[in-house]
Amino acid sequence: MKRKLRLGMVGGGQGAFIGAVHRLAARIDDKYEFVAGCLSSTPEKAKESAKEIGLDLSRSYPDFKTMAEEESKREDGIEVVSIVTPNHMHAIPAIEFLNKNIHVICDKPMTSTMDEAHELMKVIDSSKAHFFLTHNYSGYPVIREMRALVKNGELGKLRIVKGSYLQGWLGSKEEDTGSNKQAEWRTDPKRSGAAGSVGDIGSHTMHLLEFVTGLKCEAVAADLTTFVPGRQLDDDASIMIRMSENVKGNLSISQIATGQENNLTISIYGEKGALHWAQENPNYARLSIVGSADKIITRGGVIQHEDSFGSIRIPPGHPEGYLEGFAQIYSDAADILLDHKNKNKLLELLPNGETGLQIMKFINASVNSSKNNSSWTDLNAI
Amino acid sequence: MKRKLRLGMVGGGQGAFIGAVHRLAARIDDKYEFVAGCLSSTPEKAKESAKEIGLDLSRSYPDFKTMAEEESKREDGIEVVSIVTPNHMHAIPAIEFLNKNIHVICDKPMTSTMDEAHELMKVIDSSKAHFFLTHNYSGYPVIREMRALVKNGELGKLRIVKGSYLQGWLGSKEEDTGSNKQAEWRTDPKRSGAAGSVGDIGSHTMHLLEFVTGLKCEAVAADLTTFVPGRQLDDDASIMIRMSENVKGNLSISQIATGQENNLTISIYGEKGALHWAQENPNYARLSIVGSADKIITRGGVIQHEDSFGSIRIPPGHPEGYLEGFAQIYSDAADILLDHKNKNKLLELLPNGETGLQIMKFINASVNSSKNNSSWTDLNAI
Amino acid sequence: MKRKLRLGMVGGGQGAFIGAVHRLAARIDDKYEFVAGCLSSTPEKAKESAKEIGLDLSRSYPDFKTMAEEESKREDGIEVVSIVTPNHMHAIPAIEFLNKNIHVICDKPMTSTMDEAHELMKVIDSSKAHFFLTHNYSGYPVIREMRALVKNGELGKLRIVKGSYLQGWLGSKEEDTGSNKQAEWRTDPKRSGAAGSVGDIGSHTMHLLEFVTGLKCEAVAADLTTFVPGRQLDDDASIMIRMSENVKGNLSISQIATGQENNLTISIYGEKGALHWAQENPNYARLSIVGSADKIITRGGVIQHEDSFGSIRIPPGHPEGYLEGFAQIYSDAADILLDHKNKNKLLELLPNGETGLQIMKFINASVNSSKNNSSWTDLNAI
Amino acid sequence: MKRKLRLGMVGGGQGAFIGAVHRLAARIDDKYEFVAGCLSSTPEKAKESAKEIGLDLSRSYPDFKTMAEEESKREDGIEVVSIVTPNHMHAIPAIEFLNKNIHVICDKPMTSTMDEAHELMKVIDSSKAHFFLTHNYSGYPVIREMRALVKNGELGKLRIVKGSYLQGWLGSKEEDTGSNKQAEWRTDPKRSGAAGSVGDIGSHTMHLLEFVTGLKCEAVAADLTTFVPGRQLDDDASIMIRMSENVKGNLSISQIATGQENNLTISIYGEKGALHWAQENPNYARLSIVGSADKIITRGGVIQHEDSFGSIRIPPGHPEGYLEGFAQIYSDAADILLDHKNKNKLLELLPNGETGLQIMKFINASVNSSKNNSSWTDLNAI
Repeated sequence: MKRKLRLGMVGGGQGAFIGAVHRLAARIDDKYEFVAGCLSSTPEKAKESAKEIGLDLSRSYPDFKTMAEEESKREDGIEVVSIVTPNHMHAIPAIEFLNKNIHVICDKPMTSTMDEAHELMKVIDSSKAHFFLTHNYSGYPVIREMRALVKNGELGKLRIVKGSYLQGWLGSKEEDTGSNKQAEWRTDPKRSGAAGSVGDIGSHTMHLLEFVTGLKCEAVAADLTTFVPGRQLDDDASIMIRMSENVKGNLSISQIATGQENNLTISIYGEKGALHWAQENPNYARLSIVGSADKIITRGGVIQHEDSFGSIRIPPGHPEGYLEGFAQIYSDAADILLDHKNKNKLLELLPNGETGLQIMKFINASVNSSKNNSSWTDLNAI
Repeated sequence: MKRKLRLGMVGGGQGAFIGAVHRLAARIDDKYEFVAGCLSSTPEKAKESAKEIGLDLSRSYPDFKTMAEEESKREDGIEVVSIVTPNHMHAIPAIEFLNKNIHVICDKPMTSTMDEAHELMKVIDSSKAHFFLTHNYSGYPVIREMRALVKNGELGKLRIVKGSYLQGWLGSKEEDTGSNKQAEWRTDPKRSGAAGSVGDIGSHTMHLLEFVTGLKCEAVAADLTTFVPGRQLDDDASIMIRMSENVKGNLSISQIATGQENNLTISIYGEKGALHWAQENPNYARLSIVGSADKIITRGGVIQHEDSFGSIRIPPGHPEGYLEGFAQIYSDAADILLDHKNKNKLLELLPNGETGLQIMKFINASVNSSKNNSSWTDLNAI
Repeated sequence: MKRKLRLGMVGGGQGAFIGAVHRLAARIDDKYEFVAGCLSSTPEKAKESAKEIGLDLSRSYPDFKTMAEEESKREDGIEVVSIVTPNHMHAIPAIEFLNKNIHVICDKPMTSTMDEAHELMKVIDSSKAHFFLTHNYSGYPVIREMRALVKNGELGKLRIVKGSYLQGWLGSKEEDTGSNKQAEWRTDPKRSGAAGSVGDIGSHTMHLLEFVTGLKCEAVAADLTTFVPGRQLDDDASIMIRMSENVKGNLSISQIATGQENNLTISIYGEKGALHWAQENPNYARLSIVGSADKIITRGGVIQHEDSFGSIRIPPGHPEGYLEGFAQIYSDAADILLDHKNKNKLLELLPNGETGLQIMKFINASVNSSKNNSSWTDLNAI
Repeated sequence: MKRKLRLGMVGGGQGAFIGAVHRLAARIDDKYEFVAGCLSSTPEKAKESAKEIGLDLSRSYPDFKTMAEEESKREDGIEVVSIVTPNHMHAIPAIEFLNKNIHVICDKPMTSTMDEAHELMKVIDSSKAHFFLTHNYSGYPVIREMRALVKNGELGKLRIVKGSYLQGWLGSKEEDTGSNKQAEWRTDPKRSGAAGSVGDIGSHTMHLLEFVTGLKCEAVAADLTTFVPGRQLDDDASIMIRMSENVKGNLSISQIATGQENNLTISIYGEKGALHWAQENPNYARLSIVGSADKIITRGGVIQHEDSFGSIRIPPGHPEGYLEGFAQIYSDAADILLDHKNKNKLLELLPNGETGLQIMKFINASVNSSKNNSSWTDLNAI
């Protein structure tokens, strides 16, 4: 008989965006049963949200501490918890659940500060439970195929990587309208951390580049700007990067790029080939090989490595979207937790504590570089 | 407390494609609880499939007749059944469940023959239960937005419609490989009906054109071809069409269009404007208005009519795919069945028996026209 | 020392469009010297136009008959004449110049009526001079590359061809505005012939399909419509086609397709591969081969057959446009006339009298089919 | 009677690329007569090249000094000279001709060194003749339309500019193959100057950004890299930029970007709107305005400012390419020299000595910044 994992959630109540996405993503491949939650830091709202969703109210908790305690006592208690709160509320509940050996699926970035990141990392290292980070774009099948192609050496020795994540939704002072909770916390250093756009979407961009290439970012020279007057955090950044193995590149990150929706793109150039991908039409990539005509990779199409682990739910040409990419992370996490035969391979794919720490270093090195007149800043010095 | 509809399924067992899609689509918006099934016409396989999926085995039935009887007796019996079998097995189970006043969500086309279609229609008309047809592409938010734009008169009096659905997967005799069940039944007149490609994907194309424009196809002049030697049904068709209100146009339908995945496109031209959409990148449409620069409509973007009922799960730029479009049909059906305030509006949107009958006429008129040297054939004469 | 051909022109005076294009195209590769003309049927305007262009006024003629006589007497008389008048004025001057053994480069379609076409064909057959037709789209390098690929068998046995040429500029009654000479003569049966859109742009579409595939159109079933009230000729057409070697397909032709500029596209499908091209971005084609990822052919790129004769003036990625494609026809004509070593190969490429006659049959068969309730009409019966 | 300008050329002999482009561009709009040249620094080759092209051999000169002297003495001597030699041979002949009051149209960048640039600038300032620089991409009609839109304030206060010029042709050591003259001189500091890719194509990118926005680059922080071992100049660069009026941005410049042909793109973001353009499909731009659906600007289409001076030779949808863009610079230069009524407006559009000097500062500041650990470098300090 099919076995589903018992899932809980911290955050994700009424008015939240990403919590609903996590729940939907968890449903898609039907490997979880959502059974408990502390959906809001306001107990009243937590309860109201639980009702709306249809959660058993006896397992809707007023605070995550109680939840961790109570659930860990039950025989049918949650096995996994999703943490979908703003950044400053990632580390504390994650630590709480990990200490109870409950697996954690945490929204990115890992924490709001480097100190929290290091502290959480220690707990991750010592816990028997797993910690996964939803760098969801790495769940797109074509992204995983690109990773397999790079790994197989199809591009030769890598030379340049370029990433760009452009949004326009923060082009004016949305955080003051009183109706945009997303804008409020994402531009608030207390909840978001030291960076705005770089932490929110620069983090995804760098993760994708590292994920696809297997390289690590080593140093950055960054120019962060706050274009909207009165905003507390950066809303735009140009970042020059140096990756391991002498690969170089740059990033364009913006949340004030008028007219842009979620224009995340990456390009990888090697001596023998190149790969290009764009999130807004994510079922395709372009593969250049020196001396050949460019090829179009399609999700589920002809070019497909077994070890790309890009699950295909439906045939090529019928687009899978953002939610299916997100679902992949949940599906893989479930397979790991249920000891699937690919467990070890999947562990290589899923973003974990180490990934989170590295991205935290990238974020904070960028902020420091920008404060220091864009001077080259080593990630290992963070 | 949130109320979910109890859902059963006929068909969709091991090796089937569309059944899994229906279940996934039903999960996405969390308005259904999948509780019973007759997943295969082979009792053994039905049971095996039920196990795999995690269905309560006491509600896995060896045949749909038993299922209809047993479930209609239970207090917690299914309220809705999805019929996801090959075409020739649509009418009989649908009639069975409708007669028990269990709502039916049926895969398209409605039936394999005109006779069955008429018979089923009679039952639909007399049943208290609803009958919905999964012309799933009409669930895409941008398609619904296009419908709203046309309805609002933005294109002026319509003149031309064009549709194209091109696939390449049947370019060789896949039905003889022994490993492609989809190819087997879709090219088999006993299971598929009188048409191959025209019934399978031409049906979707015509439905979309009728859905977006509100027009009806009145006559066709068709040239159906079987390019792959030995195949029993058409695998390619050119069809000239005449719609109501003197609108004209044509269709290109093919399952032997080498290299094509699911290249479904439609264009609508009016005196004042035009609209274009392509299924493989379905979150966008192009809107031309005489005297203006072409505009790009994005899912969830600036151009958005309240009454388009194009549900948006995630912000623009994060693509929703085929499964979300499919899910929309399930979600709307649930809202109708649970008496949502938009019930009447949604009833206009969802493909029903009447829709199914019209599309059956289109399919059979195309076959007849082609047999009759492509002469113009009236749908009402079918 | 480089030798240039002495070129004259009939038509192309003030207010004309295509004459200026021909002159520009002739200049691009610097193989012609423009020395004489009868630029308008109105002698006054002919002179005025000659002045504006900078033509030696002693060689600006009041009528083409005088021009043919005078120029054929001069030792430095024109060797080639471009005929760029409306359709009804193609045959008569062409015959005049051919009879003087002056080569003719004529705008398409060859004539306005079948009778003229047959008459002209006789003269072409008996003249020592060449007759070329500016089906200019066949001058695009990527189109020629596609022709080479088909010829080399890369697509296998062909199955389907599809062509579409969509414009929107005649969406309202432009011919009545008094300021649109192009609209006036192109919608006037006396000057244009029996067809409107089918003659004007359908002709190009069919020529391209025949050019790229090497097939001939054998029969059509057409539905021509005049959507703009009061217009005398068709402004829209759907045409089902049967080509030689059992290839089938269809065409969409429209000059009332709101918002369309010059959206000419072709697709060729064979058993092993397919090719797609769009005129509005003409430096690229898409090549599908069964079992391979789709490839992007670029002008001057990696995939390039020596015998495609697609001259490349500038490196790939720097687009060549419509004028360069047009120039190719002039350049090839010059090479033929100057006995270039590729003369015989180029003669196969350039549209000639035979091409013109075939396209005239296509146009008139389409008109006849449409008048005859879209019944299948054999081109050889025209 | 139409008057054409007498044109000479320095450089552009056999084996050269850009000389042929200049001649073709000068022919397109028929405003020049090519009458004299010193087509190679090797007298023998100069003569041979002259013959091939069909130049009157009496006006084919063995060196540019003689040419300047002889032509300036003739009554029918050249009025304009095109200088199409490698960078190190721009300043000396330009000075020679300017001193004879012969107008100069010079390939970019202006010179190979800052010293030459300053020296040439002095002569330009004191000469009665004009000096134009062929930053040819600014001749594209859509680029000029974008400039007009920005000038009209459609984007509001500007915030960010981004430019990218990616080529792959120098991905391996082409300069050592013995068959690639372009690679040889462009990677040779003696002929090219201090920069490789930044001078060759970064110069175009920065010029376009300044041209479209009316802003000036004030400072750069650059990371230049030579990826191909043994190469003497940079073949890749990431550059962060600060423009006047507090606009920021970045550039990606590469000649080792595997698979890229001439992928030049720019994006301009303001508070109210944004514009995007890509050279490889240059007849279109995308215009975003806050609160509106994105619009597609087409060459010659609906959005068109009279003062954009984007000459349109052929109707929209029929692409104009690189050569037509190039021709625009020649056409405008001719109009200026022949005192066209738009002379003053055109003088604002054409790149001149001042433009050239600014771009030289950009190139050299980038080189200096990169040598200085990517520190911010002020262009005015160069």
